Amino acid sequence: MVKQERAARTRETLIRSAAEIFDRDGFSAASLTAISTRAGVSNGALHFHFATKAVLVDVVEETALIRLLAVTNGALPCGTSHLQLLVDVTHALADALHEDVVLRVGFALGGETSRPPRTDLRQCWRRWVEETLTRAEAEGELRRGTAVQDAATAVVAATVGFEVLGIRDPTWLATSTVTRFWRLLLPTLVAAAPLTMVEAGGTRQPSPVG
Amino acid sequence: MVKQERAARTRETLIRSAAEIFDRDGFSAASLTAISTRAGVSNGALHFHFATKAVLVDVVEETALIRLLAVTNGALPCGTSHLQLLVDVTHALADALHEDVVLRVGFALGGETSRPPRTDLRQCWRRWVEETLTRAEAEGELRRGTAVQDAATAVVAATVGFEVLGIRDPTWLATSTVTRFWRLLLPTLVAAAPLTMVEAGGTRQPSPVG
Repeated sequence: MVKQERAARTRETLIRSAAEIFDRDGFSAASLTAISTRAGVSNGALHFHFATKAVLVDVVEETALIRLLAVTNGALPCGTSHLQLLVDVTHALADALHEDVVLRVGFALGGETSRPPRTDLRQCWRRWVEETLTRAEAEGELRRGTAVQDAATAVVAATVGFEVLGIRDPTWLATSTVTRFWRLLLPTLVAAAPLTMVEAGGTRQPSPVG
Repeated sequence: MVKQERAARTRETLIRSAAEIFDRDGFSAASLTAISTRAGVSNGALHFHFATKAVLVDVVEETALIRLLAVTNGALPCGTSHLQLLVDVTHALADALHEDVVLRVGFALGGETSRPPRTDLRQCWRRWVEETLTRAEAEGELRRGTAVQDAATAVVAATVGFEVLGIRDPTWLATSTVTRFWRLLLPTLVAAAPLTMVEAGGTRQPSPVG
């Protein structure tokens, strides 16, 4: 049992180290030796867990997907609109992308042309945004004349922009940046009546990112 | 003279071939042999023009910057608002990113962490957007209470999102996608009076991208 726990911990350390090295060196240039060195394990231990670099990349992406689902899969809190959930989840996603190198690298894999697309987190995110906006529309939360597709385009493009620009400059993932975006978009998105009820800054506790 | 022209043409072919290989294989994995083969020249000819791969990457980025400036540097046409110019230029940029692999690769270099940032086209684009919105504000084109910084955040994030998502799926760079974004944003951006005068679809001739 202790041995199994140790193996699971090594595996997790390797996934995180791989993400850190992919983040620093790029997917193609990243070496398995750099990854095992950062994880503090031997090359043999790395190969015991992951037969090839391609397998390791796939596992990083799958781990990132699980973390994305943890961000999006919360139930709609009682009394909250679908639009408020969308605002809150974009804030949570920005925080998670700032803090979690595995999630960040998982998203970046969506633009990696040297590898055939597999999971594609950006597409998963897009589907979630479209579904949430479709529910908001069904509940009459969207302003008359605002098409779900128009809103989804703007939200997905902007959040992927924050993700990509945040690689070099973390202020793109700050709460204030995401709030600024929502302050501009909400007036055209939200039906007149519930507008006052959607908080651009989200309804979570303030995060330390700013 | 003929010899100089031929050298200039070879240089251009090499820059384009390099961008195509960077686009396909990633910057780190791209091999100089693949680039010279695609350009139809010898390795020796490549080395005559570009001493190292790093030099070639820099030249691709500089060439992309010149093309970005060609998109942004048009004078304000008579009778056009700064906001209409901003809308028109985002459309022109999306078209150019769709058609021009050198420009696309130049933008992608802005997120390449394996290389210290140099020109960073995304930052150049951001500065141009901020300057244009500042001029729009000075001319009273912005709606009261809309901050230049809020608007710039949304426009830059969304256009970088289109750029990145367009790598896998060119419909993100289609005229209809960019128009959709502007239709949603313009009502909160534009002062009541000139709103009817800003065309979300741009004022250029329709492009074949759709």
